[in-house]
Amino acid sequence: MENTTTQLNLLVKMAISAWESQNKQLNKLLEALTDEQLKKEIAPGRNTGVYLLGHLIAVSDALLPLLGFSDRLYPELEEVFIKNPDKSGFAMPTVSELKEKLQAVNAKLATIFETTDVDEWLERHTAVSAEDFANEPHRNKLNVLMNRTGHMANHLGQMLLLK
Amino acid sequence: MENTTTQLNLLVKMAISAWESQNKQLNKLLEALTDEQLKKEIAPGRNTGVYLLGHLIAVSDALLPLLGFSDRLYPELEEVFIKNPDKSGFAMPTVSELKEKLQAVNAKLATIFETTDVDEWLERHTAVSAEDFANEPHRNKLNVLMNRTGHMANHLGQMLLLK
Repeated sequence: MENTTTQLNLLVKMAISAWESQNKQLNKLLEALTDEQLKKEIAPGRNTGVYLLGHLIAVSDALLPLLGFSDRLYPELEEVFIKNPDKSGFAMPTVSELKEKLQAVNAKLATIFETTDVDEWLERHTAVSAEDFANEPHRNKLNVLMNRTGHMANHLGQMLLLK
Repeated sequence: MENTTTQLNLLVKMAISAWESQNKQLNKLLEALTDEQLKKEIAPGRNTGVYLLGHLIAVSDALLPLLGFSDRLYPELEEVFIKNPDKSGFAMPTVSELKEKLQAVNAKLATIFETTDVDEWLERHTAVSAEDFANEPHRNKLNVLMNRTGHMANHLGQMLLLK
Protein backbone atom coordinates (compact mmCIF):
# COMPACT_ATOMS: atom_id res chain seq x y z
CA MET A 1 0.00 0.00 0.00
CA GLU A 2 1.61 3.23 -1.07
CA ASN A 3 -1.26 5.62 -1.75
CA THR A 4 -1.17 8.10 1.10
CA THR A 5 -4.91 8.84 0.91
CA THR A 6 -5.64 5.14 1.32
CA GLN A 7 -3.24 5.03 4.24
CA LEU A 8 -4.89 8.05 5.87
CA ASN A 9 -8.35 6.55 5.56
CA LEU A 10 -7.05 3.29 7.00
CA LEU A 11 -5.49 5.02 10.01
CA VAL A 12 -8.70 6.90 10.78
CA LYS A 13 -10.67 3.68 10.42
CA MET A 14 -8.31 1.94 12.85
CA ALA A 15 -8.83 4.65 15.48
CA ILE A 16 -12.62 4.42 15.10
CA SER A 17 -12.41 0.61 15.29
CA ALA A 18 -10.46 0.87 18.55
CA TRP A 19 -13.26 3.06 19.94
CA GLU A 20 -15.90 0.63 18.70
CA SER A 21 -14.00 -2.32 20.15
CA GLN A 22 -14.15 -0.90 23.69
CA ASN A 23 -17.84 -0.09 23.19
CA LYS A 24 -18.53 -3.62 22.01
CA GLN A 25 -16.80 -5.03 25.08
CA LEU A 26 -18.90 -2.71 27.25
CA ASN A 27 -22.12 -3.89 25.58
CA LYS A 28 -21.08 -7.50 25.94
CA LEU A 29 -20.43 -6.98 29.65
CA LEU A 30 -23.80 -5.24 30.10
CA GLU A 31 -25.55 -8.20 28.50
CA ALA A 32 -23.81 -10.57 30.91
CA LEU A 33 -24.56 -8.64 34.11
CA THR A 34 -27.84 -8.52 36.02
CA ASP A 35 -29.06 -5.12 37.22
CA GLU A 36 -28.13 -6.16 40.75
CA GLN A 37 -24.57 -6.99 39.72
CA LEU A 38 -24.26 -3.65 37.94
CA LYS A 39 -25.38 -1.79 41.06
CA LYS A 40 -22.54 -3.29 43.10
CA GLU A 41 -19.22 -1.62 43.81
CA ILE A 42 -16.35 -2.71 41.55
CA ALA A 43 -14.26 -3.13 44.73
CA PRO A 44 -15.06 -2.40 48.39
CA GLY A 45 -15.76 1.32 48.86
CA ARG A 46 -15.22 2.14 45.16
CA ASN A 47 -17.53 3.28 42.34
CA THR A 48 -20.60 1.23 41.50
CA GLY A 49 -21.01 -0.25 38.03
CA VAL A 50 -24.08 1.94 37.49
CA TYR A 51 -22.11 5.08 38.25
CA LEU A 52 -19.31 4.08 35.87
CA LEU A 53 -21.85 3.26 33.16
CA GLY A 54 -23.48 6.68 33.58
CA HIS A 55 -20.03 8.30 33.61
CA LEU A 56 -19.05 6.64 30.34
CA ILE A 57 -22.34 7.65 28.68
CA ALA A 58 -21.95 11.26 29.86
CA VAL A 59 -18.36 11.43 28.60
CA SER A 60 -19.32 9.92 25.23
CA ASP A 61 -22.28 12.32 24.97
CA ALA A 62 -19.93 15.25 25.64
CA LEU A 63 -17.97 14.26 22.52
CA LEU A 64 -20.80 15.68 20.42
CA PRO A 65 -20.15 19.37 21.29
CA LEU A 66 -16.41 18.86 21.92
CA LEU A 67 -15.97 17.61 18.36
CA GLY A 68 -18.28 20.32 17.04
CA PHE A 69 -20.95 17.89 15.85
CA SER A 70 -24.04 18.82 17.88
CA ASP A 71 -25.41 19.56 21.33
CA ARG A 72 -25.38 16.77 23.86
CA LEU A 73 -28.37 14.43 23.92
CA TYR A 74 -28.45 14.17 27.74
CA PRO A 75 -26.81 17.23 29.31
CA GLU A 76 -28.46 16.37 32.63
CA LEU A 77 -26.04 13.44 33.05
CA GLU A 78 -23.09 15.78 33.59
CA GLU A 79 -24.13 16.86 37.08
CA VAL A 80 -24.62 13.33 38.36
CA PHE A 81 -21.91 11.43 36.51
CA ILE A 82 -19.10 13.89 35.76
CA LYS A 83 -19.24 16.85 38.14
CA ASN A 84 -19.97 14.74 41.19
CA PRO A 85 -18.63 11.42 42.48
CA ASP A 86 -20.69 8.32 43.08
CA LYS A 87 -22.94 8.22 46.15
CA SER A 88 -23.50 12.00 46.18
CA GLY A 89 -27.20 11.52 46.87
CA PHE A 90 -28.55 12.24 43.39
CA ALA A 91 -31.52 10.28 42.08
CA MET A 92 -29.99 7.78 39.65
CA PRO A 93 -31.53 6.78 36.33
CA THR A 94 -32.57 3.12 36.16
CA VAL A 95 -30.28 0.61 34.51
CA SER A 96 -32.67 0.25 31.55
CA GLU A 97 -32.77 4.05 31.11
CA LEU A 98 -28.98 4.15 31.09
CA LYS A 99 -28.76 1.32 28.59
CA GLU A 100 -31.17 3.18 26.27
CA LYS A 101 -29.10 6.34 26.56
CA LEU A 102 -25.91 4.42 25.83
CA GLN A 103 -27.40 3.03 22.63
CA ALA A 104 -28.73 6.44 21.57
CA VAL A 105 -25.40 8.21 22.13
CA ASN A 106 -23.41 5.51 20.35
CA ALA A 107 -25.86 5.41 17.43
CA LYS A 108 -25.60 9.18 17.05
CA LEU A 109 -21.80 9.09 17.19
CA ALA A 110 -21.60 6.19 14.72
CA THR A 111 -23.76 8.06 12.19
CA ILE A 112 -21.54 11.12 12.46
CA PHE A 113 -18.29 9.15 12.31
CA GLU A 114 -19.41 7.52 9.06
CA THR A 115 -19.58 10.86 7.27
CA THR A 116 -16.54 12.52 8.85
CA ASP A 117 -13.55 12.56 6.51
CA VAL A 118 -9.84 12.61 7.34
CA ASP A 119 -9.48 16.39 7.03
CA GLU A 120 -12.37 16.92 9.43
CA TRP A 121 -10.94 14.45 11.94
CA LEU A 122 -7.67 16.37 11.88
CA GLU A 123 -9.35 19.72 12.54
CA ARG A 124 -9.06 21.28 15.99
CA HIS A 125 -11.60 20.33 18.62
CA THR A 126 -13.71 23.07 20.20
CA ALA A 127 -11.67 23.25 23.44
CA VAL A 128 -8.46 24.38 21.71
CA SER A 129 -7.91 27.84 20.22
CA ALA A 130 -6.84 28.39 16.62
CA GLU A 131 -3.60 29.94 17.92
CA ASP A 132 -2.69 26.97 20.11
CA PHE A 133 -3.73 24.53 17.40
CA ALA A 134 -1.29 26.07 14.92
CA ASN A 135 1.56 24.89 17.16
CA GLU A 136 -0.08 21.73 18.45
CA PRO A 137 -1.77 20.01 15.50
CA HIS A 138 -2.18 16.82 17.50
CA ARG A 139 -4.97 18.53 19.47
CA ASN A 140 -7.46 17.46 16.84
CA LYS A 141 -10.79 15.65 16.88
CA LEU A 142 -9.36 12.18 16.24
CA ASN A 143 -6.96 12.58 19.14
CA VAL A 144 -9.89 13.35 21.43
CA LEU A 145 -11.54 10.13 20.28
CA MET A 146 -8.32 8.20 20.94
CA ASN A 147 -8.04 9.68 24.43
CA ARG A 148 -11.65 8.84 25.19
CA THR A 149 -11.02 5.30 23.96
CA GLY A 150 -8.29 4.98 26.59
CA HIS A 151 -10.56 6.50 29.22
CA MET A 152 -13.31 4.02 28.41
CA ALA A 153 -10.78 1.15 28.49
CA ASN A 154 -9.62 2.21 31.98
CA HIS A 155 -13.14 2.11 33.38
CA LEU A 156 -14.18 -0.96 31.41
CA GLY A 157 -11.29 -2.87 32.99
CA GLN A 158 -12.75 -1.90 36.37
CA MET A 159 -16.30 -2.82 35.39
CA LEU A 160 -15.11 -6.27 34.31
CA LEU A 161 -14.54 -6.96 38.02
CA LEU A 162 -18.33 -7.03 38.47
CA LYS A 163 -18.53 -10.38 36.69
CA MET B 1 -2.93 21.06 7.13
CA GLU B 2 -3.26 19.51 3.69
CA ASN B 3 -0.04 17.63 3.07
CA THR B 4 -0.97 13.98 3.35
CA THR B 5 2.53 12.91 4.41
CA THR B 6 2.39 15.39 7.29
CA GLN B 7 -1.03 14.05 8.20
CA LEU B 8 0.20 10.45 8.14
CA ASN B 9 3.16 11.25 10.37
CA LEU B 10 0.83 13.06 12.75
CA LEU B 11 -1.57 10.12 12.96
CA VAL B 12 1.23 7.68 13.71
CA LYS B 13 2.61 10.05 16.34
CA MET B 14 -0.83 10.26 17.96
CA ALA B 15 -1.07 6.46 18.22
CA ILE B 16 2.41 6.25 19.77
CA SER B 17 1.51 9.09 22.16
CA ALA B 18 -1.60 7.20 23.27
CA TRP B 19 0.62 4.21 24.05
CA GLU B 20 3.10 6.39 25.90
CA SER B 21 0.30 8.07 27.83
CA GLN B 22 -0.88 4.76 29.33
CA ASN B 23 2.73 3.86 30.13
CA LYS B 24 3.27 7.19 31.86
CA GLN B 25 0.17 6.63 33.95
CA LEU B 26 1.46 3.17 34.86
CA ASN B 27 4.83 4.57 35.91
CA LYS B 28 3.17 7.31 37.93
CA LEU B 29 1.06 4.70 39.72
CA LEU B 30 4.13 2.54 40.42
CA GLU B 31 5.89 5.52 41.98
CA ALA B 32 2.89 6.11 44.25
CA LEU B 33 2.49 2.53 45.48
CA THR B 34 4.56 0.71 48.07
CA ASP B 35 5.69 -2.83 47.29
CA GLU B 36 3.15 -4.06 49.83
CA GLN B 37 0.31 -2.22 48.10
CA LEU B 38 1.37 -3.62 44.74
CA LYS B 39 1.30 -7.16 46.11
CA LYS B 40 -2.35 -6.81 47.12
CA GLU B 41 -5.32 -8.00 45.09
CA ILE B 42 -7.05 -5.29 43.04
CA ALA B 43 -10.36 -6.59 44.45
CA PRO B 44 -11.12 -9.56 46.73
CA GLY B 45 -10.11 -12.81 45.04
CA ARG B 46 -8.82 -11.06 41.89
CA ASN B 47 -5.37 -10.57 40.37
CA THR B 48 -2.63 -8.98 42.43
CA GLY B 49 -0.99 -5.76 41.27
CA VAL B 50 2.32 -7.60 40.92
CA TYR B 51 0.78 -10.16 38.59
CA LEU B 52 -0.82 -7.46 36.43
CA LEU B 53 2.47 -5.56 36.28
CA GLY B 54 4.29 -8.71 35.17
CA HIS B 55 1.50 -9.41 32.67
CA LEU B 56 1.79 -5.94 31.13
CA ILE B 57 5.58 -6.23 30.88
CA ALA B 58 5.32 -9.66 29.24
CA VAL B 59 2.73 -8.41 26.73
CA SER B 60 4.80 -5.33 25.89
CA ASP B 61 7.92 -7.49 25.54
CA ALA B 62 6.05 -9.77 23.13
CA LEU B 63 5.52 -6.76 20.85
CA LEU B 64 9.17 -7.03 19.84
CA PRO B 65 8.82 -10.27 17.84
CA LEU B 66 5.15 -9.67 16.92
CA LEU B 67 6.12 -6.42 15.20
CA GLY B 68 9.19 -8.06 13.69
CA PHE B 69 11.66 -5.88 15.57
CA SER B 70 13.66 -8.37 17.67
CA ASP B 71 13.49 -11.29 20.05
CA ARG B 72 11.90 -10.73 23.43
CA LEU B 73 14.11 -9.46 26.23
CA TYR B 74 12.49 -11.65 28.90
CA PRO B 75 10.86 -14.71 27.30
CA GLU B 76 10.72 -16.38 30.73
CA LEU B 77 7.91 -13.99 31.75
CA GLU B 78 5.45 -15.63 29.35
CA GLU B 79 5.02 -18.81 31.42
CA VAL B 80 4.31 -16.97 34.65
CA PHE B 81 2.40 -13.91 33.43
CA ILE B 82 0.65 -14.88 30.18
CA LYS B 83 0.24 -18.65 29.96
CA ASN B 84 -0.80 -19.05 33.59
CA PRO B 85 -3.10 -17.09 35.87
CA ASP B 86 -2.06 -15.41 39.11
CA LYS B 87 -1.42 -17.61 42.14
CA SER B 88 -0.31 -20.61 40.07
CA GLY B 89 2.57 -21.31 42.43
CA PHE B 90 5.42 -19.92 40.33
CA ALA B 91 8.28 -18.06 41.99
CA MET B 92 7.57 -14.39 41.29
CA PRO B 93 10.23 -11.80 40.42
CA THR B 94 10.61 -9.08 43.03
CA VAL B 95 8.89 -5.73 42.51
CA SER B 96 12.22 -4.03 41.85
CA GLU B 97 13.15 -6.69 39.27
CA LEU B 98 9.81 -6.13 37.52
CA LYS B 99 10.26 -2.37 37.55
CA GLU B 100 13.70 -2.75 35.95
CA LYS B 101 12.28 -5.02 33.27
CA LEU B 102 9.45 -2.58 32.59
CA GLN B 103 11.94 0.24 32.02
CA ALA B 104 14.15 -1.94 29.81
CA VAL B 105 11.26 -3.09 27.60
CA ASN B 106 9.83 0.41 27.26
CA ALA B 107 13.25 1.89 26.50
CA LYS B 108 13.81 -0.72 23.80
CA LEU B 109 10.37 -0.11 22.28
CA ALA B 110 10.80 3.68 22.39
CA THR B 111 14.13 3.46 20.53
CA ILE B 112 12.57 1.31 17.82
CA PHE B 113 9.42 3.43 17.52
CA GLU B 114 11.56 6.53 16.90
CA THR B 115 13.04 5.04 13.75
CA THR B 116 9.94 3.28 12.41
CA ASP B 117 8.32 5.20 9.55
CA VAL B 118 4.70 5.25 8.42
CA ASP B 119 5.14 2.61 5.73
CA GLU B 120 6.73 0.23 8.23
CA TRP B 121 3.96 0.80 10.78
CA LEU B 122 1.42 -0.10 8.11
CA GLU B 123 3.15 -3.36 7.20
CA ARG B 124 1.65 -6.63 8.36
CA HIS B 125 2.60 -7.95 11.76
CA THR B 126 4.21 -11.37 12.04
CA ALA B 127 1.03 -13.20 13.12
CA VAL B 128 -0.87 -12.47 9.90
CA SER B 129 -0.13 -14.11 6.54
CA ALA B 130 0.59 -12.13 3.39
CA GLU B 131 -2.59 -13.59 1.85
CA ASP B 132 -4.84 -12.51 4.72
CA PHE B 133 -3.15 -9.13 4.92
CA ALA B 134 -3.96 -8.39 1.28
CA ASN B 135 -7.66 -8.38 2.22
CA GLU B 136 -7.30 -7.05 5.74
CA PRO B 137 -4.79 -4.18 5.61
CA HIS B 138 -5.83 -3.03 9.09
CA ARG B 139 -3.95 -6.01 10.52
CA ASN B 140 -0.78 -3.97 10.57
CA LYS B 141 1.86 -3.15 13.17
CA LEU B 142 0.31 0.13 14.28
CA ASN B 143 -3.02 -1.57 14.87
CA VAL B 144 -1.30 -4.06 17.16
CA LEU B 145 0.13 -1.15 19.13
CA MET B 146 -3.32 0.44 19.36
CA ASN B 147 -4.86 -2.82 20.58
CA ARG B 148 -2.12 -3.24 23.17
CA THR B 149 -2.73 0.35 24.30
CA GLY B 150 -6.35 -0.58 25.01
CA HIS B 151 -5.24 -3.76 26.77
CA MET B 152 -2.87 -1.81 28.99
CA ALA B 153 -5.62 0.75 29.70
CA ASN B 154 -8.00 -2.03 30.80
CA HIS B 155 -5.51 -3.40 33.32
CA LEU B 156 -4.23 0.01 34.41
CA GLY B 157 -7.80 0.95 35.35
CA GLN B 158 -7.82 -2.12 37.59
CA MET B 159 -4.41 -1.38 39.09
CA LEU B 160 -5.57 2.14 39.99
CA LEU B 161 -7.81 0.45 42.57
CA LEU B 162 -4.66 -0.40 44.57
CA LYS B 163 -4.28 3.26 45.59
